[in-house]
Parts: sequence; C-alpha cells; structure tokens
Amino acid sequence: MWALLRPALWFGSSVRGYHMPVPFPQPRNETSLVLVDEARRFIQDCLLRVGVPSSKVRCISEFLVVADYRGNFGNGLNRLDNYLSDLQRGHARLDAEPSIISETVATAHVNGNSALGVLVGNFCIDLAVKKAQSAGIGFVVAQQSHHIGMASWYAFRAAVKGLAGMVMSNAAPTMMAPDSKSASIGSNCLAFCVKGKEYHFVLDMATSVRDIGAVEWAWANDEYIPHGWAANEGGFSTCFPSLALRSPLLFPAGGHKGYCLSAIIDLLCGVLSGAQYATHIPLDQSQPSNLGQVFIALDPEFFLPNFMERLDDFCGRIQDSQPADESEPIRLPGELERMHMNYVEDLRALPYPNTLLSKYKDVADRLCVRPIELAFDRCQSRKSF
Amino acid sequence: MWALLRPALWFGSSVRGYHMPVPFPQPRNETSLVLVDEARRFIQDCLLRVGVPSSKVRCISEFLVVADYRGNFGNGLNRLDNYLSDLQRGHARLDAEPSIISETVATAHVNGNSALGVLVGNFCIDLAVKKAQSAGIGFVVAQQSHHIGMASWYAFRAAVKGLAGMVMSNAAPTMMAPDSKSASIGSNCLAFCVKGKEYHFVLDMATSVRDIGAVEWAWANDEYIPHGWAANEGGFSTCFPSLALRSPLLFPAGGHKGYCLSAIIDLLCGVLSGAQYATHIPLDQSQPSNLGQVFIALDPEFFLPNFMERLDDFCGRIQDSQPADESEPIRLPGELERMHMNYVEDLRALPYPNTLLSKYKDVADRLCVRPIELAFDRCQSRKSF
Repeated sequence: MWALLRPALWFGSSVRGYHMPVPFPQPRNETSLVLVDEARRFIQDCLLRVGVPSSKVRCISEFLVVADYRGNFGNGLNRLDNYLSDLQRGHARLDAEPSIISETVATAHVNGNSALGVLVGNFCIDLAVKKAQSAGIGFVVAQQSHHIGMASWYAFRAAVKGLAGMVMSNAAPTMMAPDSKSASIGSNCLAFCVKGKEYHFVLDMATSVRDIGAVEWAWANDEYIPHGWAANEGGFSTCFPSLALRSPLLFPAGGHKGYCLSAIIDLLCGVLSGAQYATHIPLDQSQPSNLGQVFIALDPEFFLPNFMERLDDFCGRIQDSQPADESEPIRLPGELERMHMNYVEDLRALPYPNTLLSKYKDVADRLCVRPIELAFDRCQSRKSF
Repeated sequence: MWALLRPALWFGSSVRGYHMPVPFPQPRNETSLVLVDEARRFIQDCLLRVGVPSSKVRCISEFLVVADYRGNFGNGLNRLDNYLSDLQRGHARLDAEPSIISETVATAHVNGNSALGVLVGNFCIDLAVKKAQSAGIGFVVAQQSHHIGMASWYAFRAAVKGLAGMVMSNAAPTMMAPDSKSASIGSNCLAFCVKGKEYHFVLDMATSVRDIGAVEWAWANDEYIPHGWAANEGGFSTCFPSLALRSPLLFPAGGHKGYCLSAIIDLLCGVLSGAQYATHIPLDQSQPSNLGQVFIALDPEFFLPNFMERLDDFCGRIQDSQPADESEPIRLPGELERMHMNYVEDLRALPYPNTLLSKYKDVADRLCVRPIELAFDRCQSRKSF
C-alpha cells in the first residue's frame, strides 16, 4: 500500500506516534470492513472488464481508494458505478488523452477529449506545476472534461512539490440562488492545498451548505437531513432526503455569498474554458457532461524565501484561537480527514456501509467480476496483521 | 463628473432609459444630500491640508466618491477620517510610491512602501493587466500596503480593458472560527469583475456574514443588528452593536466555509506577500497595519474568442431562474449597486447620514477646511439642475 501511505506521510500521521482510534460516523453494525488491497483489486477488475487500458487502471483505482481513505466516501468507491456507466455509454472515452489547445508561458487551455476526470486532472495540474516552476504561476483551464472526484487530490500533487495548488470544477445545476426555487448553478467545488514544515492546509469544499452526496448518503441510510441543506420541489427547506432528491435544490453556503462564489467558479471553469456551464450541464447521465475545470499552481519561492515558516506560524495562530468549548480544539481544514486516515491505518481496512457494498455485489454480478471480499474479524486490531 | 459617470457607463445605466428612483435604506429625514462635486471638493481640501501632493488628490477623492456613488458607504467618505489619521501619524506615507521587488512575465511582488491603498491598488492592478495582456494571466501580490477600500474598484479597472479582474485583501482580525470565541482572522474581502456585451458580473464581498462597517453603521444609527452577524465578548451572538464593537467578533459567512475562504485569502495576501497576517495585524490604528493584497487579471482572449457572448448567456441564465416570489426577480451581483447609482444620478447628489456629516463638521473644524455644504432643496428632482 505504498501509494496509499504517501498521503499519510504528507499529512504527518506517521510522525505522531500512536493515535487513538477515531469514531467513525457510521455505526459499526451498518458498515463492513474491506482490506485496502481488496478495494483496489475490485476497482481495477471492474475497470479492466469495461475495457480501460491496464496502464490507466492503477491510477484510477488509487485515486478512488485514497478518497475513501480520507473519509471522502462520496468520491471514492461510491463513484465507481457512475464512472463505469459513463465508460460503457461512451460519455467518458476509454482511450482518450487530454491535449493542449493553446498555451503561454503561464497558462494553458486543455481539451480533456472526454477522458476520465482523474486523467485530465492529473495532466492539467502537472502542467500547471511545470508552468509555475518557470513563471511563478501556472493557470490551466480544461474543457471536455469529466467528473474530477476529490478535487484536493490534484491540489496535493502541487503541494508535495512545494507549491500551492488550487483546483475548481463546475458541476450539474443542483444549487439555487437565494430567493429562487429552481437550480441554476452547480454546487461547484474549490480545493486549496499548501504545506509548511509542520502544518498542512488542505481545503476541499463545495459551495453549497452540503453537497448532493451527503443527501444521497442520508437517503441510502434512511436518515433525515437537517433543515437548510436542501429544498423540496417547491423551494422550501425539507428534512426528507427523498423529497430533496426529486429535483435537487441545494442551499448555497452563506446565502448569496456562497452562490456568488459558485458563479465565479463556473465563470472560470465553464464559461472561460469552452465547456458547458450553469443549466447547460445535463443533470442526468443521458448525455456527456462536458465539464470544465481550473487548475492553478503557485510557486512561493518566487515571492518569499521563508514561506513555509510563515505558513506554520499562520496555521499555529488559527489553531491557538480560543475554543468556545475547551474540549473541542479549533481544527485546521484537512484535520478531520487526517483523523480518518489514522482510523483507517489503525484498522488497515476501509469501513464501507453495507448498502454500498450490496450495490457493488450487483455490479460484480453484472460485470462477472469477483465480488468485494469482506475482512470481518481479521481487522479488529493492528496485531492481527 | 466625467470620472464618476464612467462607472455608470460600465454598468449600463445610461442605455436603459429612464429608471424609477430606488428607495434608499436610510429614512430621508436622517440623511442629507450633498452634491457630488461638493463631496469631492471637501475630500480634496482635507487631503491637501494634511499634505498629500496635489497630483494624488484627485485619484483618492474620485475613489472615495465612487464608493458612495455605488452605495458602498463604508468605503467612501466614511473612510476619509481614518485615512487622514493614518497620514498624520505617518502610518501611510504622503510621498510614497509602490515599487516592484521581483517579477516574472506573469507575476510580480510589489512593495507598497506604505503608500495609501488606492495608489498601491491602482499600480498593482495595472501591472497585472499588463502582464495578462502578454502572458494570459497577471498575478501581483503587494506587501506594506494600506487599506484598499472598495476592492471592486480595482477589478473594474481590469474589466473595462476586457479582462477579468480579481482582487483580495486581508484585514485586521475581527472574525472568529466556528466554535471559537476569539477573532483569529480578518473579514477578508474578495472582488471579481468581468464584463460581457450586455451584462456585467461585479462581486465585492467580505467573508463574514456582514462586515464590521455594517455593525458600526447600526451603532451610529442606534439600531439593533440581527442575530448571527456578530458576537459579544463571550462569543455569543448579540443584537447590540455596542456589545459587538467592544472586541469585534464577526461570524463567518457559511460557517467554516466562509472561514476557510478567508484563510485562503490571508494565506495569499498576507503569508505569501510578506505582509502581516492573521493576529499579527493590529486591530487599532496605534501602529502601521502593513496589509497585503492580491491582484489577478486574466485575459479571456487567450482562451476563447467568444467569451463575452458566453458570459452574457451565463448571466441571462442566472437571472432567468425561477424566483420564489415573482415580484422579486433574481439579481446578479452588482445590480443593487447599479440601482443605487441610478438613484444618485436621479438626485445628482449623494445621500449621507446626518451622523456622518456631523462627524465631518468636526474634521473640517480641526483641519480649518470649509465644511461640507448641503444641497437641500436643490436636489429634489433632475429638472432643478
């Protein structure tokens, strides 16, 4: 699990000694454990079965498993089904490679050629990093792209090279403007990552109060959602995920501020790139989505020699602010994900909800692939390995 | 009023024919009208009196009057007093000019040399535009800067040249992290402006629910503030602006999302630029603030030939989303400001609260400058001019 352990190193869990297991939000009896290698094996088998070249399979499986490893379950194994459907319908192309339409020393306009999002994203962020290393900043926009999954994955790639990475993507319209009752824009995502010597600042957020994945998760687990997450078809806030999912209407975070931030993201990712934008993006999978993304890398070396020390001091100051409840310290963005990584490392396995695993039992049957094998008792403690 | 009318042209009010006067949020009997030229004259007189060279006076007065013209009263005449104090104490230098520390084809690191913010800002955005015109993107960070006032002013300057402009600034720590009870970061601002053929997208927002100016405004007008804007010294939401102003604790817009966005802005503006950041920035005016800013210009010509048409379509789609209340159409960011500009053009005068005018009566006495002359009845209608 070398590739999986890399992010653990980036986030410092390996240098912190023994850590207490972190409680997982799902009750144990509703989740089952799957060995990390087994999850990776299953994803690779499925991708190979639909015809993805073996050279690309490892990169995609790694990307999905790392999302689960970080507790971002909406963008992990959960997404595989959509990717497989898109590949089988031809909405994402098996053999496509992204290509550069035009470029300057600091910018590039990339055509994703409908390759899977992770392939477009890796290509673009690497290009942005290369440009930033020579011009201070690299700004890459991609059109004809696919769902990029966990956006912070790409921002990491810039951060591990000592740069600041920022990634944005547009998405199908599921968010409504304040005082509106129809969705006009996606719950577009923004990720930012930069690392100091001691601290890491890793932000990955949607511009809605909660993303559609959280509502789907509640629906799959037969739970209510809090008021203020999503609205029913009439535009009124609802606690029932089933009503919220009929025609997704998410509330923007911070009212018009979250909405405007999402609009800026769509302006850059969709309007500027030549991809689809706003209500042009199809809500269902009946046609290719043609999403757009922006990848920015920034080399602090061009500005300050002691950026890392200053970043550490900045993060320390945030952490040192006085908590309202002394037992709940102020957390930096990315800290909850690190705690989840510690939890997974403790188990050496990924805790998946049984509903998700049962969905992939059907997928395995459909594709004639060996189903996911559960780890059960083998994972109760680190010693059992 | 040629320079003032320029923004009116940018925002299309001149092509829309006659417009209905827009109700101003302040009751008429608590505001007085001041001719635009008179406001400009007073600002220039004050600046000249404290020793600002006459070559710079026009630029600063224009900048402050345009903020009031757009209804951004917190950053208009209201700010003059702080600027005068800073100039008199030497926290902002009268004769300083910004200089470039280092640059590449697409980036620049600027030292504001403690010049007034508007002078640093104009210099930096013009530099970013120049770089964007040759490299596609221009990214300029400034240190040793001063309060930049209305951030969208600078983004406009990029937009009128056909580019997209983005401006960010850090500020003194007045915002607290969710679940905290001490301020650790500023209510940092973000402005973005881009123009199409028909529509303009002009966003200027703070990352807190409301900025400190709104709380001060409520205090000056003896009004309550809604819960959720600011907290008292114990970290609990309060409706009393007097309690909220004792040790400013603003709530971030959208909880941790607004807080993290503010942190990204501070990372770029403060940590990366070499300026002060987070709790290093002094809350009072007892010492120079050494703020940092980021100015980004992006030339759409490098990416797409039909960007303006696509932008118009994007804005149209947002405006066309179904309003919850049919009598309240969905508004684009910047539309309320355009309505205020129409209102001012209708009056040919700026409506200032009497409390503000009485403060400047004292300033005029202190500086031995002719006080602001009120317009009174002369401004009741357009015909009276």
